[in-house]
Amino acid sequence: MCLGPALTTRPLHRSLLGVPIVLYRTPAGPRAFIDRCPHRGVPLSIGKCDAQGSLECAYHGWRFDSGGHLIDVPGRVAVDERAHGLVRLPLREESGLVFVCPEPDGLPPIAPYVPPLLGAPGYTSVLREVTAPGSLYSTAENALDVPHTAILHRGLFRSQTQRTRIAAQVRRRKHWVEAEYVGEPPPSGLVARLLAVGKDRARGAVQHWDRFFLPGVAEVEYRLGPRSHFVVSAFLTPESPHVTRLYAVASFRTPLPGRLLALVLEPFARMIFAQDQRILAAQSEHVRRFGPAPFVSTELDTMGPHIRRLLKAAYQAEQAEISPAQQVSELRLSSSDDASPVFETTVELDA
Amino acid sequence: MCLGPALTTRPLHRSLLGVPIVLYRTPAGPRAFIDRCPHRGVPLSIGKCDAQGSLECAYHGWRFDSGGHLIDVPGRVAVDERAHGLVRLPLREESGLVFVCPEPDGLPPIAPYVPPLLGAPGYTSVLREVTAPGSLYSTAENALDVPHTAILHRGLFRSQTQRTRIAAQVRRRKHWVEAEYVGEPPPSGLVARLLAVGKDRARGAVQHWDRFFLPGVAEVEYRLGPRSHFVVSAFLTPESPHVTRLYAVASFRTPLPGRLLALVLEPFARMIFAQDQRILAAQSEHVRRFGPAPFVSTELDTMGPHIRRLLKAAYQAEQAEISPAQQVSELRLSSSDDASPVFETTVELDA
Amino acid sequence: MCLGPALTTRPLHRSLLGVPIVLYRTPAGPRAFIDRCPHRGVPLSIGKCDAQGSLECAYHGWRFDSGGHLIDVPGRVAVDERAHGLVRLPLREESGLVFVCPEPDGLPPIAPYVPPLLGAPGYTSVLREVTAPGSLYSTAENALDVPHTAILHRGLFRSQTQRTRIAAQVRRRKHWVEAEYVGEPPPSGLVARLLAVGKDRARGAVQHWDRFFLPGVAEVEYRLGPRSHFVVSAFLTPESPHVTRLYAVASFRTPLPGRLLALVLEPFARMIFAQDQRILAAQSEHVRRFGPAPFVSTELDTMGPHIRRLLKAAYQAEQAEISPAQQVSELRLSSSDDASPVFETTVELDA
Repeated sequence: MCLGPALTTRPLHRSLLGVPIVLYRTPAGPRAFIDRCPHRGVPLSIGKCDAQGSLECAYHGWRFDSGGHLIDVPGRVAVDERAHGLVRLPLREESGLVFVCPEPDGLPPIAPYVPPLLGAPGYTSVLREVTAPGSLYSTAENALDVPHTAILHRGLFRSQTQRTRIAAQVRRRKHWVEAEYVGEPPPSGLVARLLAVGKDRARGAVQHWDRFFLPGVAEVEYRLGPRSHFVVSAFLTPESPHVTRLYAVASFRTPLPGRLLALVLEPFARMIFAQDQRILAAQSEHVRRFGPAPFVSTELDTMGPHIRRLLKAAYQAEQAEISPAQQVSELRLSSSDDASPVFETTVELDA
Repeated sequence: MCLGPALTTRPLHRSLLGVPIVLYRTPAGPRAFIDRCPHRGVPLSIGKCDAQGSLECAYHGWRFDSGGHLIDVPGRVAVDERAHGLVRLPLREESGLVFVCPEPDGLPPIAPYVPPLLGAPGYTSVLREVTAPGSLYSTAENALDVPHTAILHRGLFRSQTQRTRIAAQVRRRKHWVEAEYVGEPPPSGLVARLLAVGKDRARGAVQHWDRFFLPGVAEVEYRLGPRSHFVVSAFLTPESPHVTRLYAVASFRTPLPGRLLALVLEPFARMIFAQDQRILAAQSEHVRRFGPAPFVSTELDTMGPHIRRLLKAAYQAEQAEISPAQQVSELRLSSSDDASPVFETTVELDA
Repeated sequence: MCLGPALTTRPLHRSLLGVPIVLYRTPAGPRAFIDRCPHRGVPLSIGKCDAQGSLECAYHGWRFDSGGHLIDVPGRVAVDERAHGLVRLPLREESGLVFVCPEPDGLPPIAPYVPPLLGAPGYTSVLREVTAPGSLYSTAENALDVPHTAILHRGLFRSQTQRTRIAAQVRRRKHWVEAEYVGEPPPSGLVARLLAVGKDRARGAVQHWDRFFLPGVAEVEYRLGPRSHFVVSAFLTPESPHVTRLYAVASFRTPLPGRLLALVLEPFARMIFAQDQRILAAQSEHVRRFGPAPFVSTELDTMGPHIRRLLKAAYQAEQAEISPAQQVSELRLSSSDDASPVFETTVELDA
């Protein structure tokens, strides 16, 4: 829903598939409410918040405490304040991120996933927030798709000079899917070179996993030799059917100083994401103008069809009125989940 | 529909809830027609008007006289000119304003209201035209709402330093509603100070009325001591369900020279209106994006619920096919209307 | 669909009433496909083409040969390439123009019309492409309408100083319509003066025809004395119900050097078209905002009602599932077509 550091005493507006939400920080903790003053329907996110954590509407100054209770109507004689409170939404702040459940009577959301290296000793972490002009499905597939990196991000990520046959093992579970790439040579692109330097590169020991967790987390993990390791976790939030917000946590450890590397890599990451945004925008606009049509997948699309299947199953489960909180709690990687079948496939990758 | 001075021989386009209207001035008087050439559907408002008062279409030059009759088709041999006239709309110019009835066979509109001090000796009057990004109801309520001035226009209008209990008497009639504020201290904001200077201010005799008349006139009247008096009348025209045009007449008498005061107050008025526009835009956009929801009113909302009730009754009457002209004529404050009940309420106001 | 010179190895996007099309030139000739990669729905027109004529998608690099067959999926092991080809559209390049049939199984399109003077000895030809903010009907009528030139293009084309009665003969055929103007004086506008100079002007021998051919070609022909002759042919393509693209071929012979005249006339042609665009935009926007309403025609509208009738008949024929190719082949001016009745009418024109 938002990054922890972005949440201050200044109200923030977010929307989640048609639900307007105002978020802000009070002395009693972060809060989320439906972003609408009950008096005249004005968004509270254009109002302000005081040091005690009460939120004031910009129009008539109605004030609400950190519990959403109406505590002041300027100029009032008597108001049944209990009757006009805000609709409070369950919220949890964890791992530098703020999660909100858009249903007021839902259970407090359980973070569906914890970025594994956030705060780990020797690791540097960077948090970023970006918007992708695509559906949740298209954005998640784009984030976890290997083959497009050699084409769309040609030169930055991978190059097409050599071809090596590598194997991809795909493991399907009930609530997540993982692809592990075995035998991948050290990536030859510019960014890839920065991530693995010197001897680590020469040794060529590359381990690479892409993972997708319901309801919408994309994770990419790389080990390049014994000293370089990084994980990028992106929490995907659908703002509308064609716009997805990504809250990303990148954690890494390399022989180079972490903060310096972060500084150097940031412009490349922006360039790569700008290329992805352009493609997602063209894809979305095309679907909107000329209608949807089925996608054709090959065995190279290791993650896309599985992401689609997971999202479809989750949507059907929600339609069948299983509470989202219940679903989320099931997302934890249980041992029974780990017992689910593992599918294996072998692909030839340009690396 | 428009301000009298804005109406020249240059055609003007206005729209009234989906009806396109062209207005212009002829030697025979001002005219209003449906803004569409019968030949190829081009708006006549992009055409021009000659000294004799005929209107010429920009495309093929079809010309219509001040009665809307087709008088020339350039290059024509024979045209049944009677058959292709314009749809003329009843129009009345009064008090510096032009009123148009959007129904061609309606009776000439009767000005629903005459700004009471326009042209009165010792008074200065200023006419202005602005657009509000809100519904007729929201815009009218905003114009006549006292409590928001202390919040939204903090410092300009009222300040929140002291609280005084004042009484508001609300008088409901069949076609209008009035709130009278009794015991109001001299307003302490910057604009308010300019309106009442010196001894008048000290004496503290403040009289204040807010009024709404069907079909859509908002009036604010202030007497600040014996020498300062002003009335602002705003005629509200719905261009679309979410856009309202205001034609305002401000008349005032103060110890300061009128023209000078008008010059000084104009930028403040613009600042205040810009703040109102921002709130109305946020309110409208929110309703459009996230759907309408009922508003919660308190006894401080002296005018809003009454305005809503009047507009609803007028709409129902119109649906029941009572001619608008008939309704408007009933708007005149008849003695029978004055006999309708008076409701009283007391509110505590930040003044 | 596009001008021949605009078609290079760089893919070009066009749309035809909701059908997205990508066009490009290969060593084997020009090609047109539905502009959508079957893999992830990305438009191929943002991809690129190589020297061998294969088209590469920008996202994952899927490549298609000049027949639309999938020939490479970077990183693939095995793909049933025959199954994932592009939808190829019949295309013909003729007279400097590229024609595409938007139905994949249609016969190769026959150019519905050949600009008669393109490449003729002594004639200079200029090709241009512009977009009109109007329907196919409104744009075609505008291109072939004489009366508006004296009003909308006042001074540039014709002036209103004198009136001469001239005759217009309208000949209606099954698939086309022609208006011939007899007795027209030499046009007096600025552009017209440039086209006929010196003695040719004095002699006053003007011959003028306006023609419309199904499915959408507008042709204007002028003979000004024995030495000046020009024909403008515009191929009209509906991009959407309110936007029409014009591919125009202007061929002319005058006593002045052709290239010089083209250089001098270009800015005037742009001014004239800008005036037409403004009117067409006002007309379209009005129809969209306030709804359509029937147009009123007089006998001066020599072409409009006939264009409407032809388009309506063609639409009904298409609905009745007569193949478009069949229709187009019937467009050729056959002798039986020439035997259809000729209607005559006389109009007074400001010339």
